[in-house]
Amino acid sequence: MAKMPDVSPLAPKGGFPDLPAVEGVRFASVAAGVRYAGRTDVMLAEFAPGTVIAGTFTRSKTRSAPVLDCEAKLGGASDQGAAILVNSGNSNAFTGIRGIEAVRAITDKVAGALGIPEARVFTASTGVIGEPLPHDRITAVIDGLRAALRPDGVADAARAIMTTDTYPKGAVRTVEVGGKTVTITGIAKGSGMIAPDMGTMLVYLFTDAKIDFDALQPLVSGACDGTFNCITVDSDTSTSDTLLVAATGASSVDVTADTDFSAALTEVMDDLAKQVVRDGEGATKFVTVAVTGARSDTDARLVAMSIANSPLVKTAVAGEDPNWGRVVMAVGKSGAEADRDRLTIRFGNVLVAENGMVAEGYMEADAAAHMKGEEVTISVDLGLGAGKSTVFTCDLTAQYIAINADYRS
Amino acid sequence: MAKMPDVSPLAPKGGFPDLPAVEGVRFASVAAGVRYAGRTDVMLAEFAPGTVIAGTFTRSKTRSAPVLDCEAKLGGASDQGAAILVNSGNSNAFTGIRGIEAVRAITDKVAGALGIPEARVFTASTGVIGEPLPHDRITAVIDGLRAALRPDGVADAARAIMTTDTYPKGAVRTVEVGGKTVTITGIAKGSGMIAPDMGTMLVYLFTDAKIDFDALQPLVSGACDGTFNCITVDSDTSTSDTLLVAATGASSVDVTADTDFSAALTEVMDDLAKQVVRDGEGATKFVTVAVTGARSDTDARLVAMSIANSPLVKTAVAGEDPNWGRVVMAVGKSGAEADRDRLTIRFGNVLVAENGMVAEGYMEADAAAHMKGEEVTISVDLGLGAGKSTVFTCDLTAQYIAINADYRS
Repeated sequence: MAKMPDVSPLAPKGGFPDLPAVEGVRFASVAAGVRYAGRTDVMLAEFAPGTVIAGTFTRSKTRSAPVLDCEAKLGGASDQGAAILVNSGNSNAFTGIRGIEAVRAITDKVAGALGIPEARVFTASTGVIGEPLPHDRITAVIDGLRAALRPDGVADAARAIMTTDTYPKGAVRTVEVGGKTVTITGIAKGSGMIAPDMGTMLVYLFTDAKIDFDALQPLVSGACDGTFNCITVDSDTSTSDTLLVAATGASSVDVTADTDFSAALTEVMDDLAKQVVRDGEGATKFVTVAVTGARSDTDARLVAMSIANSPLVKTAVAGEDPNWGRVVMAVGKSGAEADRDRLTIRFGNVLVAENGMVAEGYMEADAAAHMKGEEVTISVDLGLGAGKSTVFTCDLTAQYIAINADYRS
Repeated sequence: MAKMPDVSPLAPKGGFPDLPAVEGVRFASVAAGVRYAGRTDVMLAEFAPGTVIAGTFTRSKTRSAPVLDCEAKLGGASDQGAAILVNSGNSNAFTGIRGIEAVRAITDKVAGALGIPEARVFTASTGVIGEPLPHDRITAVIDGLRAALRPDGVADAARAIMTTDTYPKGAVRTVEVGGKTVTITGIAKGSGMIAPDMGTMLVYLFTDAKIDFDALQPLVSGACDGTFNCITVDSDTSTSDTLLVAATGASSVDVTADTDFSAALTEVMDDLAKQVVRDGEGATKFVTVAVTGARSDTDARLVAMSIANSPLVKTAVAGEDPNWGRVVMAVGKSGAEADRDRLTIRFGNVLVAENGMVAEGYMEADAAAHMKGEEVTISVDLGLGAGKSTVFTCDLTAQYIAINADYRS
């Protein structure tokens, strides 16, 4: 594997946040040598009986064995506890029957060690695609992981699931419900192959809230659509994208239909999603693409993603060039309804173009000044309707090429 | 503008081909100083009375003024000759009413100088988007261009239309029809913003064949679909893509419904399309992506383009890494029907994966040896039906970033 890049210049300034323990959840991490040397690469999360687990997954047609296994297990009975085991270094994707056997070997071992049903053990694998997962290296460390479980191990868990990430990603929100406090924490990994489609990279949220699966799942799916499904690093969708939310119920606070809870859940996911973009491979700029005035929200998303995924727009951002002509190009190719002569384009607050041409009095120096910042906003109004969409991405630099031209070597 | 890169390592070894004159066509080129210094940037082609002009254009929703003007003029009466005028350095796209006025100023001037109707003057502009075209610099040189017209000026014309191209592109085929020879020559420009959709960059073909517009246009559209619509450099579709075929009829050889002629026409277009890919910005490898076994040809095209446009596949090719896991990923995200466990993948002749996992006896060294060549072939069989598609692309290198992060500066 290529030398890890230094920490992304866009990393949150405060470092990894101070995540409180969530009642009913314990973590452990270990260096199992799945692929990497000298770092942890397997994490285990254990959940108390009563924990409800909801989630979303990649819609890739070449989904990995762990993704297929997790999907089948969502919504199962929650009376006997649960577990999530994640390894980095190998994605166990496109590994055929051996992939299924590897998942089964790991889930059986975890179930036996924790005394829970195999149907309540969720796994994920992230890393190289297509190589058999050396699952014996993982099953060999599970007894040790069980012995090391502790409520405050979440930061180490966030580190154990990293691949090309340059920093671990965590977020927390608390919400008051009926005079009691509910906590939501979350961790995520992701840096390249980021263009989530329904699910996302690997994301795990933990809460002590009490809520049924049938109430939690639509909350999770809805929040995902406005957060992780609105980011892209390189337009490439992973085979392993997995997001799971574990609600232990340990607080005894029923959050069903509580809008503050759903808002807080969305905020944690939004926070983590943006941290993934900020760790985009080779990124030097955090880019917000806001599209309004589309015929529909679907059209707005098409245009926003077309801009956010355009190599020419992304390289222009890297070069701090307010090259709005490339934005016009990306609108034109998106497939959405658009009328050249109704387009309005802004970089930051600078009106660049309107009515199909450069704006009266536009001074390129003003837009260029905005491009020099670490945060770049590209706003496009299509002038056709009320559809809108905002997506988040990063620039495309030579460092992205360096990371990916020899990732496996 | 950034310093022009050296000539692409994938450029045709023989240099620009020796293009014969085509009866009824004359060319002239000049340095008008539209944007570039020290090089030609305007070319004029003049056609004899009777010349039929067919063509295809970008389907971008933000088409340029010259494209809209050309589209409206296709199929017009051919009794009074015609002309094509092209400038490089400025695309006259997204320039509003001023763009329309610029087209009209140029076409009026050319029509007056050559004594032909304005409705028979086709223009194209290529270069930066969104800046007003200094059309007075072009109208000022038209009388000089008319005086310089000569039958053998096609190579200079190919040079005058270049932007980030590293070499001029030309091709020729002759075909025998009824014991007489018909000639087809063509020139093209294009290097970045290459993901043609119906039309292409700038491509001009010239033939002395005799054929009606109603017979020529479907031939051109069909040939385009199998040639220029099968290439991509960076997934970004230009606002200015234009392909025109001018048939002067000067040979008096009627080629209507002649399959040899349509085959030769397709060959010239195929040749030029591949030359565009070979001049892909920063390219070091010519990549053929061949997809078979899809449920439909449409599905096969989706998969092939998903692979050809994937930044992770393209960087792996740049790194000479037979990273077939990224091919699996690109199949999975394409939107086409796919069954992970029926996929077969080859790099060159090396069977890499089948039945949803790495192939029995696969030796990575064999695939790695193929990746070291200048021509890389990625073959995917989906195992579902008879649909197939082959597309052509190049790798994604740090040089692409360097060219595009400061193209306008």
